[in-house]
Amino acid sequence: MRFWQKYHQGRSQKRSMLCIGLDTTLEQIPPHLHSLGVPEALIEFNRHIIEATQDLALAYKINLAFYEQYGLDGWIAFERTLEAIPPECIVIADAKRGDIGNTSTAYAKAFYEKYDCDSLTVAPYMGQDSVAPFLEYADRMTFVLALTSNAGSHDFQRLDVGHKPLYRAVIESSMAWTTPEGARNLGFVIGATHPQEFTELRQSFPDTMFLIPGVGAQGGDIASIISANAGAPALINISRAVIYASQKQDFAAAARNATLSFLEQAQLVHYSRHKHVEENN
Amino acid sequence: MRFWQKYHQGRSQKRSMLCIGLDTTLEQIPPHLHSLGVPEALIEFNRHIIEATQDLALAYKINLAFYEQYGLDGWIAFERTLEAIPPECIVIADAKRGDIGNTSTAYAKAFYEKYDCDSLTVAPYMGQDSVAPFLEYADRMTFVLALTSNAGSHDFQRLDVGHKPLYRAVIESSMAWTTPEGARNLGFVIGATHPQEFTELRQSFPDTMFLIPGVGAQGGDIASIISANAGAPALINISRAVIYASQKQDFAAAARNATLSFLEQAQLVHYSRHKHVEENN
Repeated sequence: MRFWQKYHQGRSQKRSMLCIGLDTTLEQIPPHLHSLGVPEALIEFNRHIIEATQDLALAYKINLAFYEQYGLDGWIAFERTLEAIPPECIVIADAKRGDIGNTSTAYAKAFYEKYDCDSLTVAPYMGQDSVAPFLEYADRMTFVLALTSNAGSHDFQRLDVGHKPLYRAVIESSMAWTTPEGARNLGFVIGATHPQEFTELRQSFPDTMFLIPGVGAQGGDIASIISANAGAPALINISRAVIYASQKQDFAAAARNATLSFLEQAQLVHYSRHKHVEENN
Repeated sequence: MRFWQKYHQGRSQKRSMLCIGLDTTLEQIPPHLHSLGVPEALIEFNRHIIEATQDLALAYKINLAFYEQYGLDGWIAFERTLEAIPPECIVIADAKRGDIGNTSTAYAKAFYEKYDCDSLTVAPYMGQDSVAPFLEYADRMTFVLALTSNAGSHDFQRLDVGHKPLYRAVIESSMAWTTPEGARNLGFVIGATHPQEFTELRQSFPDTMFLIPGVGAQGGDIASIISANAGAPALINISRAVIYASQKQDFAAAARNATLSFLEQAQLVHYSRHKHVEENN
């Protein structure tokens, strides 16, 4: 039960449900790092962000898109970033993969064996055989996209498929594809930008792990979500609003302060703002 | 109009709509290549398959899952495979990517800029802002998943979303997200395993490019699909039934013969079976 072990331990020690999204691109990191080039600039940036926030963050989410765009160098940055994350923190590969059965098996091998991540995001459109291979990794947490945080979530996810919206059919079907025991390692992505639906889903599925994007740059309110979540299992992700809090040499300290600010908004912790964080140089 | 130029030229010269899927894994390639290891074994295998079939295949489709499972070495195999494909052949990155807007933009950069592929498969679940960034590359062909070839296509894609199944809503909505001109570079994945729905979709969308998986190992019949397609724009993909036709040193010649056999079933071409293909050694 590796995922849940990390989750329970982290939550009790850090009093945090926060996941920090390392959506790192050369264009967006502080200019003084640019001359390092890819992959070094991305690695250096991530390493400092992780060092400055690892006692506050329960998880780090790495969105593969931002790394893939650099080709091999991006994958080197991904690998080196994985190495920089302390073993007690949950690592989520935000890859939104999914394909026919034998192909999803290969994606599962990539992220759960080769890269040994704790968790992976998966796209549900192709149905049971596209999701099932990920669920075989019983000590991880596979997050199926349900109601995502973006504007496009209105296009298909909310369509009525017979007395329920598609996103609810995705959740119910996915849970039916595994055993009650297996369902413990099946979570769902529910955006913070849909507070009403979030509340309804939380009531329907009180014990299910939710990964909650959409707080920060996307406009979701962390205090409302924490309140609606009512202490249920969840990871709340913030990416840009934390990691790009400053474009200067103090970016890591600024990321820590932004993280503390979110935690205070959530009224989850009352950490000292004065923990010493060395400025990156 | 790079994609269409290659398509029209290839179709008239090769009299073929065939796409060969390079779903290459170390476990499945002939044993005499295994000792080369990854990435060399994959590269060597792909290079021979491409050499033996490039005068017959209009396109090659590379499913990223099979490469990603090997980490960096897999991406090296992917890059080297791209180099081995002749410039007149269409290259499809079968990656089934899709994410919120700014993230899909990064995926589009990865496959349309960094790797300069002609075409990419995209998952529609996250809606307009997840698909739109790919459509900005007006000389490529973005294939949105509509009705896929696998058993799981019955789980969500066929759900009634109001007088139509979800897969049709995906097609209609996606086309509405671009201009009539832009829609020329928007195609759809329609599995050969749904002959009745394929026929209906072809009648509804006679000028739209379809990527058709599911022939061969998945059981779809190529002659029926060719007939139902009625000369409309399409690429018919075959992966395992071609590339794994033999587990011996003659694997490349066997792949060529399997390709010719599919083309003959399709009554598309009457190539000589006697083109000299050197056995791989």
